[in-house]
Amino acid sequence: MEENLRALLTAVREGSLDVEEALRRLGEAGFVELGFACLDTGRAERRGFPEVIFCPGKTPDQVAELFSRLAVSNPNLLATRATRRVYRAVQQAVPEAEYSPTARLAYLWRERPVQPRGMVLVVSAGTADLPVAEEAALTAEVMGSRVERLYDVGVAGLHRLLGRLDRLRQARVLVVVAGMEGALASVVGGLVARPVIAVPTSVGYGASFRGLAALLTMLNSCAAGVAVVNIDNGFGAGYLASLINRLGD
Amino acid sequence: MEENLRALLTAVREGSLDVEEALRRLGEAGFVELGFACLDTGRAERRGFPEVIFCPGKTPDQVAELFSRLAVSNPNLLATRATRRVYRAVQQAVPEAEYSPTARLAYLWRERPVQPRGMVLVVSAGTADLPVAEEAALTAEVMGSRVERLYDVGVAGLHRLLGRLDRLRQARVLVVVAGMEGALASVVGGLVARPVIAVPTSVGYGASFRGLAALLTMLNSCAAGVAVVNIDNGFGAGYLASLINRLGD
Amino acid sequence: MEENLRALLTAVREGSLDVEEALRRLGEAGFVELGFACLDTGRAERRGFPEVIFCPGKTPDQVAELFSRLAVSNPNLLATRATRRVYRAVQQAVPEAEYSPTARLAYLWRERPVQPRGMVLVVSAGTADLPVAEEAALTAEVMGSRVERLYDVGVAGLHRLLGRLDRLRQARVLVVVAGMEGALASVVGGLVARPVIAVPTSVGYGASFRGLAALLTMLNSCAAGVAVVNIDNGFGAGYLASLINRLGD
Amino acid sequence: MEENLRALLTAVREGSLDVEEALRRLGEAGFVELGFACLDTGRAERRGFPEVIFCPGKTPDQVAELFSRLAVSNPNLLATRATRRVYRAVQQAVPEAEYSPTARLAYLWRERPVQPRGMVLVVSAGTADLPVAEEAALTAEVMGSRVERLYDVGVAGLHRLLGRLDRLRQARVLVVVAGMEGALASVVGGLVARPVIAVPTSVGYGASFRGLAALLTMLNSCAAGVAVVNIDNGFGAGYLASLINRLGD
Amino acid sequence: MEENLRALLTAVREGSLDVEEALRRLGEAGFVELGFACLDTGRAERRGFPEVIFCPGKTPDQVAELFSRLAVSNPNLLATRATRRVYRAVQQAVPEAEYSPTARLAYLWRERPVQPRGMVLVVSAGTADLPVAEEAALTAEVMGSRVERLYDVGVAGLHRLLGRLDRLRQARVLVVVAGMEGALASVVGGLVARPVIAVPTSVGYGASFRGLAALLTMLNSCAAGVAVVNIDNGFGAGYLASLINRLGD
Amino acid sequence: MEENLRALLTAVREGSLDVEEALRRLGEAGFVELGFACLDTGRAERRGFPEVIFCPGKTPDQVAELFSRLAVSNPNLLATRATRRVYRAVQQAVPEAEYSPTARLAYLWRERPVQPRGMVLVVSAGTADLPVAEEAALTAEVMGSRVERLYDVGVAGLHRLLGRLDRLRQARVLVVVAGMEGALASVVGGLVARPVIAVPTSVGYGASFRGLAALLTMLNSCAAGVAVVNIDNGFGAGYLASLINRLGD
Amino acid sequence: MEENLRALLTAVREGSLDVEEALRRLGEAGFVELGFACLDTGRAERRGFPEVIFCPGKTPDQVAELFSRLAVSNPNLLATRATRRVYRAVQQAVPEAEYSPTARLAYLWRERPVQPRGMVLVVSAGTADLPVAEEAALTAEVMGSRVERLYDVGVAGLHRLLGRLDRLRQARVLVVVAGMEGALASVVGGLVARPVIAVPTSVGYGASFRGLAALLTMLNSCAAGVAVVNIDNGFGAGYLASLINRLGD
Amino acid sequence: MEENLRALLTAVREGSLDVEEALRRLGEAGFVELGFACLDTGRAERRGFPEVIFCPGKTPDQVAELFSRLAVSNPNLLATRATRRVYRAVQQAVPEAEYSPTARLAYLWRERPVQPRGMVLVVSAGTADLPVAEEAALTAEVMGSRVERLYDVGVAGLHRLLGRLDRLRQARVLVVVAGMEGALASVVGGLVARPVIAVPTSVGYGASFRGLAALLTMLNSCAAGVAVVNIDNGFGAGYLASLINRLGD
Repeated sequence: MEENLRALLTAVREGSLDVEEALRRLGEAGFVELGFACLDTGRAERRGFPEVIFCPGKTPDQVAELFSRLAVSNPNLLATRATRRVYRAVQQAVPEAEYSPTARLAYLWRERPVQPRGMVLVVSAGTADLPVAEEAALTAEVMGSRVERLYDVGVAGLHRLLGRLDRLRQARVLVVVAGMEGALASVVGGLVARPVIAVPTSVGYGASFRGLAALLTMLNSCAAGVAVVNIDNGFGAGYLASLINRLGD
Repeated sequence: MEENLRALLTAVREGSLDVEEALRRLGEAGFVELGFACLDTGRAERRGFPEVIFCPGKTPDQVAELFSRLAVSNPNLLATRATRRVYRAVQQAVPEAEYSPTARLAYLWRERPVQPRGMVLVVSAGTADLPVAEEAALTAEVMGSRVERLYDVGVAGLHRLLGRLDRLRQARVLVVVAGMEGALASVVGGLVARPVIAVPTSVGYGASFRGLAALLTMLNSCAAGVAVVNIDNGFGAGYLASLINRLGD
Repeated sequence: MEENLRALLTAVREGSLDVEEALRRLGEAGFVELGFACLDTGRAERRGFPEVIFCPGKTPDQVAELFSRLAVSNPNLLATRATRRVYRAVQQAVPEAEYSPTARLAYLWRERPVQPRGMVLVVSAGTADLPVAEEAALTAEVMGSRVERLYDVGVAGLHRLLGRLDRLRQARVLVVVAGMEGALASVVGGLVARPVIAVPTSVGYGASFRGLAALLTMLNSCAAGVAVVNIDNGFGAGYLASLINRLGD
Repeated sequence: MEENLRALLTAVREGSLDVEEALRRLGEAGFVELGFACLDTGRAERRGFPEVIFCPGKTPDQVAELFSRLAVSNPNLLATRATRRVYRAVQQAVPEAEYSPTARLAYLWRERPVQPRGMVLVVSAGTADLPVAEEAALTAEVMGSRVERLYDVGVAGLHRLLGRLDRLRQARVLVVVAGMEGALASVVGGLVARPVIAVPTSVGYGASFRGLAALLTMLNSCAAGVAVVNIDNGFGAGYLASLINRLGD
Repeated sequence: MEENLRALLTAVREGSLDVEEALRRLGEAGFVELGFACLDTGRAERRGFPEVIFCPGKTPDQVAELFSRLAVSNPNLLATRATRRVYRAVQQAVPEAEYSPTARLAYLWRERPVQPRGMVLVVSAGTADLPVAEEAALTAEVMGSRVERLYDVGVAGLHRLLGRLDRLRQARVLVVVAGMEGALASVVGGLVARPVIAVPTSVGYGASFRGLAALLTMLNSCAAGVAVVNIDNGFGAGYLASLINRLGD
Repeated sequence: MEENLRALLTAVREGSLDVEEALRRLGEAGFVELGFACLDTGRAERRGFPEVIFCPGKTPDQVAELFSRLAVSNPNLLATRATRRVYRAVQQAVPEAEYSPTARLAYLWRERPVQPRGMVLVVSAGTADLPVAEEAALTAEVMGSRVERLYDVGVAGLHRLLGRLDRLRQARVLVVVAGMEGALASVVGGLVARPVIAVPTSVGYGASFRGLAALLTMLNSCAAGVAVVNIDNGFGAGYLASLINRLGD
Repeated sequence: MEENLRALLTAVREGSLDVEEALRRLGEAGFVELGFACLDTGRAERRGFPEVIFCPGKTPDQVAELFSRLAVSNPNLLATRATRRVYRAVQQAVPEAEYSPTARLAYLWRERPVQPRGMVLVVSAGTADLPVAEEAALTAEVMGSRVERLYDVGVAGLHRLLGRLDRLRQARVLVVVAGMEGALASVVGGLVARPVIAVPTSVGYGASFRGLAALLTMLNSCAAGVAVVNIDNGFGAGYLASLINRLGD
Repeated sequence: MEENLRALLTAVREGSLDVEEALRRLGEAGFVELGFACLDTGRAERRGFPEVIFCPGKTPDQVAELFSRLAVSNPNLLATRATRRVYRAVQQAVPEAEYSPTARLAYLWRERPVQPRGMVLVVSAGTADLPVAEEAALTAEVMGSRVERLYDVGVAGLHRLLGRLDRLRQARVLVVVAGMEGALASVVGGLVARPVIAVPTSVGYGASFRGLAALLTMLNSCAAGVAVVNIDNGFGAGYLASLINRLGD
């Protein structure tokens, strides 16, 4: 944006652009808009993060078009909650695009960090939490993090978790995915000195109220250092974990 | 009751009681009522359990009167949610009566089991859960159980709990008292092979919604063998724990 | 675990393992893990309880594999919320496996107690509560309890319940299954001196809010000695009832 | 209203009022208003019911003024949720006014039916429900019903209720007042063939959520013939019970 | 019951019944049970009300069997929430049985009152409330009430309602059926001096939360004389209306 | 109505109708009804607004009949939540009728304002909010407003919104449609000096609870000048926006 | 803002400001900020609306300081939810400031419109809704609207409302304030062709849940043309009503 | 722990401790406990983080004792939700202790980082959110972070926020504190490429439901990179922000 502004101001200075015309351009396009659009364009560059397409409510063709446009200037790319049908449209437009049916992610992963140092550990309580956990893990990977997975370590069998304390403590940031009563987040939070992103899932029966029980559990965690994202929002957790992880590189 | 009925019918048969008088007796008391009252009277005898007075909504004098009436035929007695003012009225009527300001219980504890074998273990997460935990513990004690206490062992510092696995496993029945996210019930439930009675407390901030978060957590526990009583209902948990504990004697 | 530890310490003592290596092994494997895994293995032996497979979120093949592995060393076995399709996979792997479509349980029941003394009574309010009641009853049976059933005795026709007071009072522990307003748990709780496990069901219309009404009713029961499990959680109730029932044997 | 209309029409007929002016007056004053105000005035006469003053949000003086105005033409009168301070103001204005601190009612009861035939039975579960039960009972009495009270017959001690089946069945309409789990309404509803008005109270602890649990219980009653009024709304129940009761006279 | 008791006691007194046999009779059947079963048998006779079969959770054959059994001794009969498939099974067993697909009722209506005097008026707000309104209306009719219908008179067009004030006031009891914001119950309640049974329906969008909005509206009605049944519970309203209506005959 | 009244009064004046008969007629027919029905007929004329048919719960034929009747005297017409099947029935009856599958509106748009001055701006946050936004926009258009659309300007990319400040400020009234967290309403409300109608949509995942999150956000907006309609109620917002917009013409 | 921009650009053109400096100024101050602050300053001028101080969470002195600063350039001014203590501080700083204890508003009202044409009608259901209704009315007045009040016209006595149809229809915009079941908004909405702003109040008992019942009622209003503000938010309703009302001038 | 283990193993190796005795010691003390307690002691050292005392439910003396014990080995220390009375007790025991009445923190801050590079920016929406914002800011400071504050920048006046984009983007991690509708978190999240910790506050009126509205808003944020802590949990946010911030040093 600064460049655009400089060019415009220079043209005014040099007399190749008169004040009223400059004013009109700024007004027409919207100065603010120009500014933010500029930042927007610059965002992927500075962050090294791909733009993310949220698929629900878009047709396969719309997703494919957005995907192929973004693919021009972004090595990595994510489309979340993608059905297989959406993926087929994407793939036709961008043959390199990959797909994880478990994580419901269509993605482009052309650029991988040579040597990422920090590790994001995705921990999940039960097998039914897998789709959400994978969405978190793959999101973080495509965004450049090294990710490890520690699945099916719910608190009903605490030894499975306690037996991997080392791995828990090697992580730079942890994503904890759990449904039902969601107690895993508190237990993990009490064992490590790193940020924990908790993801409640809608897995559960009766009074789990589609994830509300796990959500409340996690928000009320007695262990400090835990924050929560929306129910089933694996993408949000993976995205945030990656933002945090890169701070350490 | 069958004996009472037989005696009454025999007296009718033998002519020592005429039909109208028999009818009147049954009618006066209410046949069903008599029957149930009979069970009621017999309940304390057979169970060895005191009747329980629920204080809120009763005047100190009313509580004292009920207390002193019941004290005639019951060695042990409980009045729950008793204020100190209620206790003073009770004490005047029944000088032996004792009081725990923490558990808010006024009680009579004249008969203690010589050698109770099973042990009820009351486990609590934090210091703020103490009143509820003590209500559970003292209730179970006055009802004849041997009780041990394991307080302040919340999951944020898991080692405090894991360091007492032996005691956890020596219990015949466990009462787990926790507020905030209430995860302790699931963790304890996963460590023992005994019934666990979970008591959510209203301790917590913000989205604990006065115990709702802990309640939902406990209802959704991924560990089998856990059942839940009402928020802050230490009495109910201690009562049930004692019912269960005596099955093993 | 004790054996493992003894072996390790003995090796240290005998000099075949030096201190640093012993330290490394303990650290590497995770001492805790060793310990808990040991307990885990020992659990079925000491408890005489089968491991329980929760089917939702697992493929028929995954359930069948878990089932057949566990079948090697466990005479009895439970897989809950099993569809008929899951059962067919299980049956192919373990031909002795049985199935209850009502209770949605696939199970192995090779070992039955010769003479169980205590009785678990499963009481239900209406015909629509049957699946949950049967899940509770069959769970308790496979876990070694003698179970009796008292179905369709909702409080709208109280005489059906009052006419079976004897059976109610012969039970060592009772499971009460009810939807709609769930009042049955309070009524039964007021009639017996035994532990009552209440199971709210999602049966009901309008303001039952999928079991929430019955759940709240049961949690607020004015009868002491009642605890509650999750909505529709017949398995949890049967499991806990069996834990309690065996205390009396 | 009829008189107003007749006067107006007569004036038109007699030529003292022309059509356009009549039309204007009807339009200006609002015919409807005239009509309804008329009905309003006639309401007490035809119904024999006093107007009811809802005290909260009004000053003692305002209540006293309304009370004394209405006292001119109404033998009986009710002011609900009246504090003692409100009553003192009322009493100064209308010395005959009476007060029930339990029911929080200030009332005028100058006219009592010589021989009311139907009976309204107010049934309550516990002592803490007394204020609401008394509000219902006294409301029905002042509105001309014969009222009987059956208090403290909660379902935890079912024999107290079953022992009074006769009285239950003599009632023409029943008001059932209960807090906690509110199961009494279903049980009573299953025992009688008369309309049952259920009043949930805010009495309870923890997950009673200030009467919500009892409200849901009563709305989901498995016994037909039960309808529900607002939490703690004894007045509403007594009012409706009296409307129903008079249908039978 | 008193007569039964007197007969039994007299027989004991006269020696025609010995004590053990009397005891057995009382014990075997359960005295209470005998009493209640007796009432149960007598209920239809004394009330003139058919037993009601709740279809959900029962197979068509089960409903048909219950229906045909009850049809032997009851002229009128109701089966609620009956699908067409259920009806076909019922019809095969009891050819006289009729069916209303709108009200989802299968019914037998062989006996109609010659001259019912009171009238039940069923008022509904919109066309989408029709199934619930018809369930209420037909229930009351089959139970012997004269029923009139006033449909589609929601408060958005108040004149439709105000234009039928006469009919509103001719009713002995009113059933008001409304979804969305459910304001109709308050408006009707303010216009009549008769009992109003309000039925919230699940009709509505967004923040109607499946009838919760209408339910709360009706419970908080500022008009006295209104009570509420469960969401969509037309049957319950019709049943209660009929109980009330017959008080006036 | 005025005509009816005048005729009646004139007849009284002329002596062709006597006072008692006039009184009877007014009473019989219900004066109020006459009056309001009259107003009803006059409504469309005075407002220039078409009557609106709410399709759900009506058959295609019913909608078509209502539509064709209203089409006789109304140039413009709306039928909301119309399926394509409903539209086909409407179209057969009224060939000019148009249809928007996105907005789910069947409509007649024969009369368009020559030069509407004010502009209604419909702003939406994301593509999934489109159906609700279009329902609002088309409703306002058919009701005579000039409408502009500003879609997909959610707060996650604020520059898209800030770049169009001019258009935001040219609007006379704004409709803001947003799901998820619904923050757009507050942001827009803070930027303009015009009325803002906020429409929460049920778009969202997990803890959006089908629009509840957005609804609460909008109700709690820190920007003054914002009011809210029901979840997904685009029609209601467009209708209100048009009422407001015409005030300025 | 445009002027600032023009000045800056002109300075660049004229050479009195070089490109880098211009760039720095834009960057330093934040162009956007400059722009918006400009708008902010200009807001009162263009709108003729005073800035509004929200008192809770501010000390009396802080409010007084903000008030006196704003009083310099604004003829009219509002401070909402002001306690009497806050007002005294304000009054000391700005002696002309007035206070309404009912509406809890401290205000400055130096400039009144000579001849406002449109009228805002504030309608309230009961006396307890007065504070909220007055907050709405006074807010609209201080913001320049002509306001009329129609209080205590709840739907339980519909004739009070129907008798004032003329006044209802003379309003350009209506604010409807109601607690309890909040039905008044729907009824008023059905009677007028003008925008209706509904304000639910927290007035009510039991299941009104502090205004939730009225809020839901109003959101689900079957009458089109109604929008809702937050519970008890009289200020918000008066503010919006005034924005709407001025469109017509 | 490692040292303890090494000592024990060495003793075994050297023969000064035999295997059975070593086994007993490990068993007696609880191996796990030893292990975790060790970690516990080491935690502050490795993390450089003080232990945190949660004051509610503890007496001033208890807090003071814990504080003074921890003060021996920790340079920095936090006690949250401390009243002034608690602080006085703490100060007597540890004169260096400081106190922030706004943040309700008693703290010891003897060790400050010489040159912390990363910056935690605490952003708040309104003045009423100050206590929570200060709790977050001071927590992060005492834990070693450089903290900047950006208060009172709610979205109703967006320019206040947009004018400080530079500061927003200089932060390494942001804490966003907001009540009411909580939209600030989404807006900030859309402007930066850093982790955002959102803290809903209970500030608000009516339908904010004590922070629930803001909580749901933040959980549903359409901006990726945002996670949420409990309502009013400033401490939790500051703690987590500090954990994240130190990753970048």
